[in-house]
Amino acid sequence: MQETGGRLDLVAEARRQWRAHGWVGPDRGMAAVISLMRAQQIVLGRLEDVVKPFGLSYARYEVLMLLSFSRRGVLPLARIGERLQVHPASVTGAVAKLEAQGLLVREPHPDDRRAVLARITDEGRRVAEQSTAALNAGPFADVGLSDEAAEQLVEVIGELRRSAGDF
Amino acid sequence: MQETGGRLDLVAEARRQWRAHGWVGPDRGMAAVISLMRAQQIVLGRLEDVVKPFGLSYARYEVLMLLSFSRRGVLPLARIGERLQVHPASVTGAVAKLEAQGLLVREPHPDDRRAVLARITDEGRRVAEQSTAALNAGPFADVGLSDEAAEQLVEVIGELRRSAGDF
Repeated sequence: MQETGGRLDLVAEARRQWRAHGWVGPDRGMAAVISLMRAQQIVLGRLEDVVKPFGLSYARYEVLMLLSFSRRGVLPLARIGERLQVHPASVTGAVAKLEAQGLLVREPHPDDRRAVLARITDEGRRVAEQSTAALNAGPFADVGLSDEAAEQLVEVIGELRRSAGDF
Repeated sequence: MQETGGRLDLVAEARRQWRAHGWVGPDRGMAAVISLMRAQQIVLGRLEDVVKPFGLSYARYEVLMLLSFSRRGVLPLARIGERLQVHPASVTGAVAKLEAQGLLVREPHPDDRRAVLARITDEGRRVAEQSTAALNAGPFADVGLSDEAAEQLVEVIGELRRSAGDF
């Protein structure tokens, strides 16, 4: 077992096990995949900690930011789901909660009666701005990576996302 | 807006917005963070698709593998949670479901009556082996990255995990 400072490196240990079982080759992909899962877990925890005092989850923060960046502060719910790659039911849930918090309002779509629009409120913009300031001062200012490593991460993951058709 | 092949690159677009708002500096960390979230979403979807035919979720697959790699095929539930960095309630839920599926059994700890052990069954080992073979032939064989990029990803995320005290 590989220990560093007393705590096991789960990725290195899984890789050692993979290779010991003769699964050489896929051990690289496995290590990349579980590294990603672990990093997301670490990072999401930090983001949630920062947005929580603003009454937000990170998922709801993303919806607010998408609206605040849109040209008129209004988007169809279906478009929000597409952009964030989130299931329609999750968008509906997040939007309902944000509406209950007074951070957006739902409106009928003027041209499509099956569609629903979400429009950010002034209070929604205020909360989006404040939580962004907190994220920019905290986890976004220091991800736990050198600038070079952060850029490398964006680039390598860009390759993965491109191959998955994410853009 | 940066479009590639018709589909928007959400990370590049968020970064453009960040910089347009004068949030230069944190835009790098933000891009790294949302890249990680997006990559995890893509990769987890693939893993779930592969383990589902075996009656597993990826979370339950991880529990099975941890048990199969342990010396005697048995671990305390608390240890499983620690190793996988999963909330005790989630471990309890996953273990209960795996027991109902006949893939492990729960046992009292011989030396600590507050602790519960999970012991993998022969059927559990069989399912762990089969689902691993499917993952090794699928998402672990091809993550959508060159070998070099996959190694780079493991290394950079290792830096992030180390700085977070993950090992």
